[in-house]
Amino acid sequence: MKHSYRTFWAALLAAALLAFSLAPAHAKGPKARQATSELYQVGVIDALLAGAYGGSQTLGTLRGHGTLGLGTFDGLDGEMVVLDGVVYQVPFDGVVRRPAMGVTTPFAQVVRFRPEGAASLPAASNLKALEAALDAAITAKVGDLSRFAAVRLDADFASLTARSVPRQSPPFRPLAEVAKGQAVFRFEDVRGTLVGLRGPDFVRGLGVPGWHWHFLTQDRTRGGHVLDCTLASGAEVSAPFQTLRAMSLHLPKSGLSGMDLGRDRTGELKAVESSK
Amino acid sequence: MKHSYRTFWAALLAAALLAFSLAPAHAKGPKARQATSELYQVGVIDALLAGAYGGSQTLGTLRGHGTLGLGTFDGLDGEMVVLDGVVYQVPFDGVVRRPAMGVTTPFAQVVRFRPEGAASLPAASNLKALEAALDAAITAKVGDLSRFAAVRLDADFASLTARSVPRQSPPFRPLAEVAKGQAVFRFEDVRGTLVGLRGPDFVRGLGVPGWHWHFLTQDRTRGGHVLDCTLASGAEVSAPFQTLRAMSLHLPKSGLSGMDLGRDRTGELKAVESSK
Repeated sequence: MKHSYRTFWAALLAAALLAFSLAPAHAKGPKARQATSELYQVGVIDALLAGAYGGSQTLGTLRGHGTLGLGTFDGLDGEMVVLDGVVYQVPFDGVVRRPAMGVTTPFAQVVRFRPEGAASLPAASNLKALEAALDAAITAKVGDLSRFAAVRLDADFASLTARSVPRQSPPFRPLAEVAKGQAVFRFEDVRGTLVGLRGPDFVRGLGVPGWHWHFLTQDRTRGGHVLDCTLASGAEVSAPFQTLRAMSLHLPKSGLSGMDLGRDRTGELKAVESSK
Repeated sequence: MKHSYRTFWAALLAAALLAFSLAPAHAKGPKARQATSELYQVGVIDALLAGAYGGSQTLGTLRGHGTLGLGTFDGLDGEMVVLDGVVYQVPFDGVVRRPAMGVTTPFAQVVRFRPEGAASLPAASNLKALEAALDAAITAKVGDLSRFAAVRLDADFASLTARSVPRQSPPFRPLAEVAKGQAVFRFEDVRGTLVGLRGPDFVRGLGVPGWHWHFLTQDRTRGGHVLDCTLASGAEVSAPFQTLRAMSLHLPKSGLSGMDLGRDRTGELKAVESSK
């Protein structure tokens, strides 16, 4: 029996070594895990701006690639907020719902959120001041703004303006036109969570350069794409953030036929992102 | 002893099952493998154009992500061609060498090449005609040109013009300036292999929109970045290609401090890619 046990343990050791050698890199330790931190993106922003609203990936698949993020739904059916791995939908009426995992998205960005630092945001900051404080904290941490970044901000807001967009049917009009008919939601003295993703300047055309914010109230019943906000006066707020040195892009199987992807849509994006 | 063997085999079975369960998804079957077809990119083209020539990933790591591709080396030390999983370096003197796997790259793109179709290229085609025939074949196959694509072309060329660039030392000048001092290699009646990668229009700033070609002679002793070529007259040539619906981008750990990544470098890229 003694020999049998020795054989057993030797085989088990062999098993462990074999398993370790075959395990994916991100299972190998904190350093390897760091390397797999990526911004996972479905679709291309310029295609969305051009009117490519048909979904190409299910929420079920998307959710497998991140716990925090934002996007929209098949047919441009409202604003998406992904928080703690849950996908929330803020449709045109502003009443949050939890869509089925079989629903698809034409554009979304998610990250496996593992904060590496936190930014202190001064009380009463508006969106611009809040972005500047985050940029400074990220630059202090990693040297510059050439990485992607994600942030989660649970806070009290003196005011917050969010919007959602009406569901579209084909033939689809460009997003800049559709967004003119957006529903705007104005909140005062509201507690909730901002989800922010930041793209470096060079992602223009493909992703969103700079910050992009979606919001959910603390009770997760209201929210939308954030047009502006002001933090409550009083104490400063701490916002955990993460930077990402990798991005993966996933294109629709059906292609993007008929979409003009050659021209500069910077102006359109700015209008769509921030027009009130 | 019989019991001992049984224990051994049970443990070995456990090892195999454990190893299988921990193996990465792309090792699990043809369908999962298909999903992992991606263009793997190190660095950002606009950063390279701006002079970010410091390598950020080793060739050993790069080679783990693709078998076919192109790029450059730390310090802009020549043109990279990846063919059949081998990394070739075409330095300024045009004499191909096989760099050590510890050498790094600031910009490279590779794919795991698994052709899904082949384009017939008319005899005597020049580079422009060859690209048009490829675009037509890809559009016929997948509907449009919104995906990434890779092609390998083993052929006889009536003529081919390639170039390489001189190794740089800091402080680095922009690529458009460095490329003015390129070495140009003119080949006649040469047999060899073209490696081509195609980016959709929306990758501008980040990757290379349109086709980008590197060349190696059949004996793998000469080559470079292709400025123009003409296929031999006679029979048409078949070029196996692959389209890719995913791209992953890997940014340097050291950041891209001081690089102006905000402006449109389309003109600079065109000059660098094709000026003779």
